[in-house]
Amino acid sequence: MSKRLYHGAAFYPELWSEEIIEQDIQYMKEAGINVARIGEFAWSRMEPEEGRIDMSFFVDVIQRLYDNGIETVMCTPTPTPPIWLTHGHPERMYVDENGTAMGHGSRQHACTNNGYFRARAAIITEHIARAVGALPGVIGWQIDNEFKAHVAECMCATCKSLWQEWLERRYGTIEQLNEAWGTDIWSEYYHSFEQVPQPGPAPFLHNSSLKTMYQLFSMEKIAEFADEQAAIIRKYSKAPITHNSSVAFHVDNERLFQHLDFASFDTYANFDNTPGYLINCDLFRNFKRGKDFWIMETSTSFSASLESYAMPHPNGYLRSEAVAAYALGAEAFCYWLWRQQRAGCEQPHGSVISAWGKPTIGYQSVLEVEEARKRIEPIIVSSRPAQAEVAVTYSDRAKAFLKTEPHRKLNHRALVTSFYERILSMGIHRDLIPEGADLSGYKLLMTPFIHYLSPDYVQRARAFAEQGGVWIVGPLSGGRTEHHTVHTDAALGKELETLAGVETLYTYPMEGTGTIGRAFGLSAPLSLWSAVFEPKEAAAVGILEQGLAPGKAFITERPLGRGKIVMLGSLPAGDEGDALLKALIDRYAADAGVTLRTDVTQGTIVAPRYTDRHELWVIVNMDGQGGSVTLPRQGFDPLTQADVPAGKLDVGAFEYRIVQFPRPVQN
Amino acid sequence: MSKRLYHGAAFYPELWSEEIIEQDIQYMKEAGINVARIGEFAWSRMEPEEGRIDMSFFVDVIQRLYDNGIETVMCTPTPTPPIWLTHGHPERMYVDENGTAMGHGSRQHACTNNGYFRARAAIITEHIARAVGALPGVIGWQIDNEFKAHVAECMCATCKSLWQEWLERRYGTIEQLNEAWGTDIWSEYYHSFEQVPQPGPAPFLHNSSLKTMYQLFSMEKIAEFADEQAAIIRKYSKAPITHNSSVAFHVDNERLFQHLDFASFDTYANFDNTPGYLINCDLFRNFKRGKDFWIMETSTSFSASLESYAMPHPNGYLRSEAVAAYALGAEAFCYWLWRQQRAGCEQPHGSVISAWGKPTIGYQSVLEVEEARKRIEPIIVSSRPAQAEVAVTYSDRAKAFLKTEPHRKLNHRALVTSFYERILSMGIHRDLIPEGADLSGYKLLMTPFIHYLSPDYVQRARAFAEQGGVWIVGPLSGGRTEHHTVHTDAALGKELETLAGVETLYTYPMEGTGTIGRAFGLSAPLSLWSAVFEPKEAAAVGILEQGLAPGKAFITERPLGRGKIVMLGSLPAGDEGDALLKALIDRYAADAGVTLRTDVTQGTIVAPRYTDRHELWVIVNMDGQGGSVTLPRQGFDPLTQADVPAGKLDVGAFEYRIVQFPRPVQN
Amino acid sequence: MSKRLYHGAAFYPELWSEEIIEQDIQYMKEAGINVARIGEFAWSRMEPEEGRIDMSFFVDVIQRLYDNGIETVMCTPTPTPPIWLTHGHPERMYVDENGTAMGHGSRQHACTNNGYFRARAAIITEHIARAVGALPGVIGWQIDNEFKAHVAECMCATCKSLWQEWLERRYGTIEQLNEAWGTDIWSEYYHSFEQVPQPGPAPFLHNSSLKTMYQLFSMEKIAEFADEQAAIIRKYSKAPITHNSSVAFHVDNERLFQHLDFASFDTYANFDNTPGYLINCDLFRNFKRGKDFWIMETSTSFSASLESYAMPHPNGYLRSEAVAAYALGAEAFCYWLWRQQRAGCEQPHGSVISAWGKPTIGYQSVLEVEEARKRIEPIIVSSRPAQAEVAVTYSDRAKAFLKTEPHRKLNHRALVTSFYERILSMGIHRDLIPEGADLSGYKLLMTPFIHYLSPDYVQRARAFAEQGGVWIVGPLSGGRTEHHTVHTDAALGKELETLAGVETLYTYPMEGTGTIGRAFGLSAPLSLWSAVFEPKEAAAVGILEQGLAPGKAFITERPLGRGKIVMLGSLPAGDEGDALLKALIDRYAADAGVTLRTDVTQGTIVAPRYTDRHELWVIVNMDGQGGSVTLPRQGFDPLTQADVPAGKLDVGAFEYRIVQFPRPVQN
Repeated sequence: MSKRLYHGAAFYPELWSEEIIEQDIQYMKEAGINVARIGEFAWSRMEPEEGRIDMSFFVDVIQRLYDNGIETVMCTPTPTPPIWLTHGHPERMYVDENGTAMGHGSRQHACTNNGYFRARAAIITEHIARAVGALPGVIGWQIDNEFKAHVAECMCATCKSLWQEWLERRYGTIEQLNEAWGTDIWSEYYHSFEQVPQPGPAPFLHNSSLKTMYQLFSMEKIAEFADEQAAIIRKYSKAPITHNSSVAFHVDNERLFQHLDFASFDTYANFDNTPGYLINCDLFRNFKRGKDFWIMETSTSFSASLESYAMPHPNGYLRSEAVAAYALGAEAFCYWLWRQQRAGCEQPHGSVISAWGKPTIGYQSVLEVEEARKRIEPIIVSSRPAQAEVAVTYSDRAKAFLKTEPHRKLNHRALVTSFYERILSMGIHRDLIPEGADLSGYKLLMTPFIHYLSPDYVQRARAFAEQGGVWIVGPLSGGRTEHHTVHTDAALGKELETLAGVETLYTYPMEGTGTIGRAFGLSAPLSLWSAVFEPKEAAAVGILEQGLAPGKAFITERPLGRGKIVMLGSLPAGDEGDALLKALIDRYAADAGVTLRTDVTQGTIVAPRYTDRHELWVIVNMDGQGGSVTLPRQGFDPLTQADVPAGKLDVGAFEYRIVQFPRPVQN
Repeated sequence: MSKRLYHGAAFYPELWSEEIIEQDIQYMKEAGINVARIGEFAWSRMEPEEGRIDMSFFVDVIQRLYDNGIETVMCTPTPTPPIWLTHGHPERMYVDENGTAMGHGSRQHACTNNGYFRARAAIITEHIARAVGALPGVIGWQIDNEFKAHVAECMCATCKSLWQEWLERRYGTIEQLNEAWGTDIWSEYYHSFEQVPQPGPAPFLHNSSLKTMYQLFSMEKIAEFADEQAAIIRKYSKAPITHNSSVAFHVDNERLFQHLDFASFDTYANFDNTPGYLINCDLFRNFKRGKDFWIMETSTSFSASLESYAMPHPNGYLRSEAVAAYALGAEAFCYWLWRQQRAGCEQPHGSVISAWGKPTIGYQSVLEVEEARKRIEPIIVSSRPAQAEVAVTYSDRAKAFLKTEPHRKLNHRALVTSFYERILSMGIHRDLIPEGADLSGYKLLMTPFIHYLSPDYVQRARAFAEQGGVWIVGPLSGGRTEHHTVHTDAALGKELETLAGVETLYTYPMEGTGTIGRAFGLSAPLSLWSAVFEPKEAAAVGILEQGLAPGKAFITERPLGRGKIVMLGSLPAGDEGDALLKALIDRYAADAGVTLRTDVTQGTIVAPRYTDRHELWVIVNMDGQGGSVTLPRQGFDPLTQADVPAGKLDVGAFEYRIVQFPRPVQN
Repeated sequence: MSKRLYHGAAFYPELWSEEIIEQDIQYMKEAGINVARIGEFAWSRMEPEEGRIDMSFFVDVIQRLYDNGIETVMCTPTPTPPIWLTHGHPERMYVDENGTAMGHGSRQHACTNNGYFRARAAIITEHIARAVGALPGVIGWQIDNEFKAHVAECMCATCKSLWQEWLERRYGTIEQLNEAWGTDIWSEYYHSFEQVPQPGPAPFLHNSSLKTMYQLFSMEKIAEFADEQAAIIRKYSKAPITHNSSVAFHVDNERLFQHLDFASFDTYANFDNTPGYLINCDLFRNFKRGKDFWIMETSTSFSASLESYAMPHPNGYLRSEAVAAYALGAEAFCYWLWRQQRAGCEQPHGSVISAWGKPTIGYQSVLEVEEARKRIEPIIVSSRPAQAEVAVTYSDRAKAFLKTEPHRKLNHRALVTSFYERILSMGIHRDLIPEGADLSGYKLLMTPFIHYLSPDYVQRARAFAEQGGVWIVGPLSGGRTEHHTVHTDAALGKELETLAGVETLYTYPMEGTGTIGRAFGLSAPLSLWSAVFEPKEAAAVGILEQGLAPGKAFITERPLGRGKIVMLGSLPAGDEGDALLKALIDRYAADAGVTLRTDVTQGTIVAPRYTDRHELWVIVNMDGQGGSVTLPRQGFDPLTQADVPAGKLDVGAFEYRIVQFPRPVQN
């Protein structure tokens, strides 16, 4: 891809007449759409009968798009195998946790681990790659579509065999599995791998290890499928490959993107959940560090299906979303979908153009996005998003552990988003980073809601701290082993507790016990399953008042080399808890020397970017209320080519501004 | 049937001893029961072993009832096939949407499309008809019982074949089905009809066309079963045939009653839901225009099963229900049930007589009904219910479309009842009419909540308007094709938009967008999925304020011949919305010259009837609070044989009055 | 067992290393644990491969425990059959009401009625009994674990056959079953027992008789399994046998304990549900009259699983629980569990010692229990709990009837506990007694919420009244026959109504009808499905005001010999209802001459006990607020060896006191 900003839409030429395709291409040009994503559900069009494959229609469409200045992201159509693959073959279908096999007619109905499915998927992928891989219009690839969005872990017979093989590779002998999982419990004990069941119907809960490992198995398998598809494509195409993912799907995004070329995601967060939108940008930017991400799907106004719909965006919001995304590292901002579908179950979904070829309620917003895109493109493409100084580790494997052990319906995404929102609202620039991410360049690292901390992670975080960083561990982190069992040497594992200089005295649920935590001069009720500490070589920073263990610590701090490790054993709750948590972040951000932070008002964001010589602030009002931020020194507006004085800068409702400062020497 | 008013009860002589049967017949006479419905669950008594059929017991009961002045509605017992038909034959049973086959022991457990079931049903029906068809006591027939009350669309293998045949008849070729349903979406594409699945388990939603067509198929099949039964009965009996239906069941009532002789329904609406009771009268009166309907089942006080119960009626309410029903066109008012059941799952259900042979809490009310029935019978039987001037089109097929596409759990019955309640509370006499109803005689026609408007309907409504009527279309009407897809020529279809002189600019969900609609000097928030209009050859009557498309129209009006067409694109909400909708109805009722309307207070109704020479008002207080209505001129009370002065007439709690006026010349 | 008070814990040596077992035994001694329960899930350890049984590990553990002063309750491990029994054998597994067979990996996954399961269970039980039955440390046995806690009635093919055999034994001929169940309803009629289905999937509710009888069948079968295990154990051991049961499980506790030697239960009631804890003591004391019961499982602080957790106890509460239990007749107070599990699905559950071998948040409370146990042991073991004067009949068979017919989601346990709480809060000592319990010694008998009253029960209660007792019948009692049908001679059966001197006029649900009941000078709204009485030879004590049957009675009273029978037809609701019910209990307790009652403040209890010469009051504050009770005369505190003056005695938060009075001559 040549460096530019993309403004795209999902396009389904296979659903429309030649006349409408021609019209659509012209309309796209008018709307400023410069990239189309095609093909992800079109298997039956490409291969209507088994083995009869004809890609000429798509070759032609890609060429015509290209001739009109529109580039293409080509997809593999594997989420929707044709009727010839599914009809009369329940053994090829996805089986849910109740043992029910899916039928034809929706999507993700086939088991992606089924051998025949894989064989046919490889064949169609090879044909596609061969046919369009060298076309100049094809600037990228998407594997499949939204893996595991509608389904979770398949329970079919194929998966059972693969699961048992996977376990054998992981554990070597059944005895080692038995030991790791503690299967003497409830006489679960297995004599061979082929006896290990899938976590299907049972009178009560399954063993935690079984449940978590089955999720990790499923996540690995779907990533292997993506790898397999990518390998085929690479034989015929140099264009980079991605998948349109989400933290809402049952995938391990870190693993999924490992062998792909760039990250992308789909988001349909409502206007009233702006943090839920922004968190994606701050996370997916870091799955492929140094490479721009794509927003592969978002709505022009509202998402909908036959059975649900979202609130339409207020006028002006779409442009704020797009500018914020570009500023935070997006190369592309793409809609689902170009033309409203006339049939199927997503007929009501918002689009750019209606099924009858007219502008939709979101159309004007699309024009506004395009105007902004053109305006900011030179500035964005000549700069890079700033690495944050504050990092929060995000883990989809932790999501799997929490799905197995949700305590009281805890939801990983909600917990993480709420934690994130706090940092966002403090005006601190932040990265959400996967577990395996390089920690260099960060000053403050937070590790919340990760039941299992790997030795590798702990070692790297320790090194990070020893080199001057501040590492905050918790809440809810470290209490489980890699097999999803409880440690037997110490509550959070001997290694972590030794490092932190604490002994965890007790772990128990604090809600309802009347426990108040006090730290930084503030008090707040404590919540969640909590760890209570006895500081050994650490200082007690937060102390329990009242409750079952008064006087004991829930926040501790210990110097570690040039930095420090902070244990956060509980989650302060309510408005007071929010204040206490912000005080904690504030304190340790200051300790760590965090400077990439502004006083921007809530509802407005500052996205910092760098060129070699400048620091840029892209300031965007997201809430439609307007806001302000204090400029520390005089800046320059590259859009208006005017100086901007130091001091308070107001931004209007949904307004965006860019301010450029000379880059300080010390950076 | 000779013309009289019936007061009836469901009677199960097969469950009781000879002694109790004799007692019951005497008690019926005392309570004023003049018709009994029998036989609908008695298959195992009639045919205890396959092929051993003996109807003598029922012949005898009918004869004895008749000898005591009690006539009989005879039923076919097909909702409950005996154990010899079901045991060991899962392939004959109803299969639910999860693929689970039902077992013996409840009702509607067999698939009514199963060939063997049909054969045995025909045989038992023939035997019944032959045995009792000529008995003088048999004045009517009921086919089966409450079709599809407990089940919806069967997913068995028989239904799969019939469904594919039905599709082939409807679409001719699979290619035409593919085109109509847009099956290129998600590679759903079928090569043959035998590949088209039933809408069973799937990871996400099925294609809208598949889901809606499967409902229509099921509705058609159950009606065919009724037709088949009726044809057999007619070979042996001249008595008219009905089915005890409801808008709550998964049937198309218009189709179901097409080949039956009169309409009837079951209702168990609570006292606090009087509109939910009355709407049935105003609807079922119109399934067989010109023929009285029957209330085949209602409770004397409360319905109940092992797992639920309704609130008992307040004393006095039952009589108001009966008088209102008779006045609105009912020939019969019948209870479920005569004697409380001693066994089964409906033991607790209210009745006339308890299982131990004593009066129930509802018994006194039954005597009051009988007293009123006798008092009003001469007046009712010598008059006919007035056709309303205001008609609302009711469609069970629209209910199917809405079940497929409920947006946000929209419930067809709740939407329609709420709309109806508004007209009722305005004192306007009204008809709910099926889609195919003759429109002559009406002045104002409303067409709300019908996703698909057939060309035939639009043509007849157009003609209605051109001849002077006012036609109000919407909300939620017209936006889908007959295949449950989106139009591709215009949002509501080119034909309707041209007729209305509007272009629909946008369709989107208005909740949460802060949209205010203003019309008739009133403002209200707008709700539901809405259509926003640009008037072309129409006048903008209602305008959007605030929201996403300010200044555009949500109500338009266009003259059409001697009448007009009004588009209502959205549903005003809340108390303000209620006022706005009433203003709309008020305006167009006035425009249309609606006169069949009184100022009756809420909670009291006026049911107008005509004789050749008189107009009658049957005034009934339904809410136990009393009420009043203004008499435009002096009337005459045929019950008391006294004049009633013009002006305000008070009615007491649960009181009913009849006032007779000379019929004006112009009617 | 030699007479002492036990303080125990569930111990799983099979899950831990030799080193930890040794450590645990020492820790147990430190914590004052003197009995361990072992083995209930250890089948796979005892018999890792089919037929290879080795009990030496457990023999050794029991011996070592014994050597350290810790006695053992040995369990049969049948809730968790090993993989060799389950793998590849779906026909041996529990099948739920949807027809789904369970897989391996949780517990209670096998069908306890399966022949092969029974054979293998007998074999392992025999091996266990033979191996450890004569060990001096084994002081008791527990059969299986928490029967039917996670499952209800199995629907497998084995159960189907046994069910049909059970029915044949119960009814003799299919004709008698048809008659009893009223199967002419809905053509349910069966020609042979093998046609009678299990109550599986059906479009609507099954016949009440089918549903209730299937529950009774299941309850009988699980008790037979317990009997079978007990018989095997008794061949090798003289130690008494129990089962750790609960009113929450799908068992008939009266039947279950019939052939066992002592009663025990598990309870995890929260601190805010103290009545839910105490009711177990007052009930299980009476399943084996004259024998102490055991609390076999309770948490030291909180119960939890992967998906839920309870609120931890406040400090001090555990000791109050233990002292109250010992005082109310417990011989043992045991924890689940000793050492937190490191694996499985109950990892988070509270315990005495953590998985890493340290005290938990509940540990200090355990030490407090032990201190109290030692202090009160001499006093408790030399006295017996007083029989109450007030008895409430508790029936798990009634629970089954109510599960079949819950009206509006009525919950048997909640109804009974609420009723119980009222008596408790009035300071009245009480027994909950099974249906078959001897009534001698009681003065007031209450029989609420029992749909079916057996002739035997009625006869014994009648005799009780005739000999001077007061018998209060209702609410919700007597309205169904033994087959779960409605009486046909009178609403509550002729026998009961004749005895009570009333005719039940009506039965109907009173909620929402505005009915007010007035009695004892108080008025209250009435609730539940109610019976309205016409007194014949009885006095009307409670009268309906307003509602549907004003002036009729809902409470009647009739002398019966030297006592009386009181009918309570409805449940007064809300605060006013609470007052009215207390007035009723107060009135009839006084009538009956109840004296075993104090003015103890709510949240504190008095547990009366007797020696030959003394009456003891064990006073325990349960709510952490402190309280008081008036001593009628001077007493003596055997713990402090000091006199306690007559008059008000205060007890502090979670404090317990024992006061000894000379036993009055009249007792």
